[in-house]
Amino acid sequence: MSSRWLTLIPPDEARRILAETPPVGAERVPLAAATGRVLAHPFMAPDDLPAERRAVMDGYAVRAADVHTASELSLVVLNVVGGVPMGDVFHGRMAAGEAVAIATGGFLPADADAVVMVEHTEALGGSGDGSGGGARIEVSRAVAAGGNVVQPGEDLARGETVLPAGRRLRPADLALLATFGAVEIDVFRRPRVAVLSTGNELCAPEAIPRPGQVRDANQVALAAQVAACGCQVTAAGIVRDDAEALRAKVTSLLPGHDAVILSGGSSIGTKDLSAEALGDLPPPGILFHGIDIRPGKPTLFARAGGKPVLGMPGFPTSSLVVFDAFIRPLLWRLSGEGARDPWPARRAARLGAAHRSVVGREDYLRVALEERDGALWADPLRGGSATLSNVVRADGLVCVPAAVDHLDAGAAVEVLLYT
Amino acid sequence: MSSRWLTLIPPDEARRILAETPPVGAERVPLAAATGRVLAHPFMAPDDLPAERRAVMDGYAVRAADVHTASELSLVVLNVVGGVPMGDVFHGRMAAGEAVAIATGGFLPADADAVVMVEHTEALGGSGDGSGGGARIEVSRAVAAGGNVVQPGEDLARGETVLPAGRRLRPADLALLATFGAVEIDVFRRPRVAVLSTGNELCAPEAIPRPGQVRDANQVALAAQVAACGCQVTAAGIVRDDAEALRAKVTSLLPGHDAVILSGGSSIGTKDLSAEALGDLPPPGILFHGIDIRPGKPTLFARAGGKPVLGMPGFPTSSLVVFDAFIRPLLWRLSGEGARDPWPARRAARLGAAHRSVVGREDYLRVALEERDGALWADPLRGGSATLSNVVRADGLVCVPAAVDHLDAGAAVEVLLYT
Repeated sequence: MSSRWLTLIPPDEARRILAETPPVGAERVPLAAATGRVLAHPFMAPDDLPAERRAVMDGYAVRAADVHTASELSLVVLNVVGGVPMGDVFHGRMAAGEAVAIATGGFLPADADAVVMVEHTEALGGSGDGSGGGARIEVSRAVAAGGNVVQPGEDLARGETVLPAGRRLRPADLALLATFGAVEIDVFRRPRVAVLSTGNELCAPEAIPRPGQVRDANQVALAAQVAACGCQVTAAGIVRDDAEALRAKVTSLLPGHDAVILSGGSSIGTKDLSAEALGDLPPPGILFHGIDIRPGKPTLFARAGGKPVLGMPGFPTSSLVVFDAFIRPLLWRLSGEGARDPWPARRAARLGAAHRSVVGREDYLRVALEERDGALWADPLRGGSATLSNVVRADGLVCVPAAVDHLDAGAAVEVLLYT
Repeated sequence: MSSRWLTLIPPDEARRILAETPPVGAERVPLAAATGRVLAHPFMAPDDLPAERRAVMDGYAVRAADVHTASELSLVVLNVVGGVPMGDVFHGRMAAGEAVAIATGGFLPADADAVVMVEHTEALGGSGDGSGGGARIEVSRAVAAGGNVVQPGEDLARGETVLPAGRRLRPADLALLATFGAVEIDVFRRPRVAVLSTGNELCAPEAIPRPGQVRDANQVALAAQVAACGCQVTAAGIVRDDAEALRAKVTSLLPGHDAVILSGGSSIGTKDLSAEALGDLPPPGILFHGIDIRPGKPTLFARAGGKPVLGMPGFPTSSLVVFDAFIRPLLWRLSGEGARDPWPARRAARLGAAHRSVVGREDYLRVALEERDGALWADPLRGGSATLSNVVRADGLVCVPAAVDHLDAGAAVEVLLYT
């Protein structure tokens, strides 16, 4: 029966093949809907930021030369000739010895070159409300030209590239785009991904299983994982173990989707039909069937006319781990994202129990973190890939690289955190 | 003018006050809509998982006693009397010397106690398709009782608490809930949060600013940050600098929302109206106005009849950083989540330039990461809180704790990563 075995490829080779996925096309969306979307073109500052000189403190716009001798022991008195209204500019002139009240963000009057902070002034008379109106102020500290003022282009100069293509937009990016009035943005479409399950033993989660049946746990989890990548998900139901039915279903889903993910049916066994069903898809077809990893060995990857078609392992734990380790990066590529750390949240820990692997195989241990004896321990959770509770209870994964055949208890490891 | 200054409270005190936020109420949602939602009650396994003995390998169900002498040199021959159909059980009996074909996930026949892996067998005759049908097999390896079988309750025992209340549901959790047929889940409501901006200088992002005006950058960013916390956002527009108008707007938003966030207007200056407008809200009213942090000092926090009302600093960078450091954890609490690491993604680095702070103040430096000379460096980005590009270009933040008054260039720091 050895001919029926999977041909395992090294995990790095699988990653290389999966990374060759080109992105979907672009579309234009309103700014308010752009968070988490991936920028299709670089964004260059269309203007200087700020465009005008603006106060960065509440106080008084002055000529720095007028107050260069000011100190607590040598107060300088200035006449307040008005105020900069927020949302407008100061329309008057400001002569030597004069000041204009200004609030943070206010546009600097043309004749001023600095702002004295309000707490370095004392009002001497007039309305005393800081709005000007015949008041005088004592200034108790000098300020240099440009002091407490942001200059045009100091934040960003016109033409600077601020956001590269392929960037997933963060809230700060939206602030920047809003500042420049970029209220419509070209982003990559959200990939449309269909998820379906195969297996005669499966019933829907809402059904009461008959003897021999189990509820389909993978599809709802896969749909959640796909959605968390920013894709649009079609939950395409359960297909019976029939190669022709499966091929027909996948063929019907491909035109309306950018990728199709099959759950189950990718192991080699009497019920293995994915490989058979996917063997006839448009070229290039099946690119690998089997990755040298644990859990998740029987993962299948095909391209049908350029669209990824994935066969996920049937055990829920295997499916969950393979998705995080291999499929999420693929969907990021499909979404137009540039290179990105697949595991930004990591924590250094010591392995709580020895682990045996084999050279060439990459293992993903489900671990729980616990502080003990002044150290952080990553304790492997009991149970193999047929056990669902271990991935539910895990704080993260420890990846045992292909070159490593064992880790001692207490070994220094990096935990890839679930966040 | 010292009386007009903010009363700064220590950042730990602000965190303590913000953490006292009680959660919103619960609602029932379909399982497929529960990802990212927060569980309202603990979930206990309603049954053993698995409920029945199941095969974890493709092969043959056997009596272990029949094959305990099997080896490559001493093959044991068994009669295959049938197969376990996927989605059904084996309805026959299996006597000594007999085997039943079984696939991964199949329910073990009542008379079997182990599974021999298919690759430790050789078919001798009959249909040869593994379905039984008068075939015989040679078994070349012994298997212990229970071998390649998962026992009832081995994954989870009935009554075990698997998911605590306050847990934000992950895809793996959905798989577990689906397995048990929990197709409707009680989760906390998604908090409804209104975001509005104050400031006469502000115009909408789609408008052409008149002289003295700038586009409102904060609201779209705050809305994105709030949405990323799992809340429902109302973008409530721009209110002019008028305490009465602001009070009226907040008062009109409170009945339909669980929290209100004001952008701008929280600094002490001629335009400061938030404190005045919020001073008359239902008790307890303003709990603090000013945190000893940089950026973000003039942050204001009130409770109006138990609902959080926040005054965010007006500079976009300050607003973005304060949200991540202080407001996101508050919204998690409001969402029903238990204690959670606010910065799961961290990276150890060396600080690229010296930084001066003052004891008592907590600083958040915007830093870019770069590998140099075999080390990872966190380079502070130029520009203060009036600079937006630094937070856009940052890979993350370095928090300089209140007890630290300076960091040397090259100091070991932990970068709180944007992900």
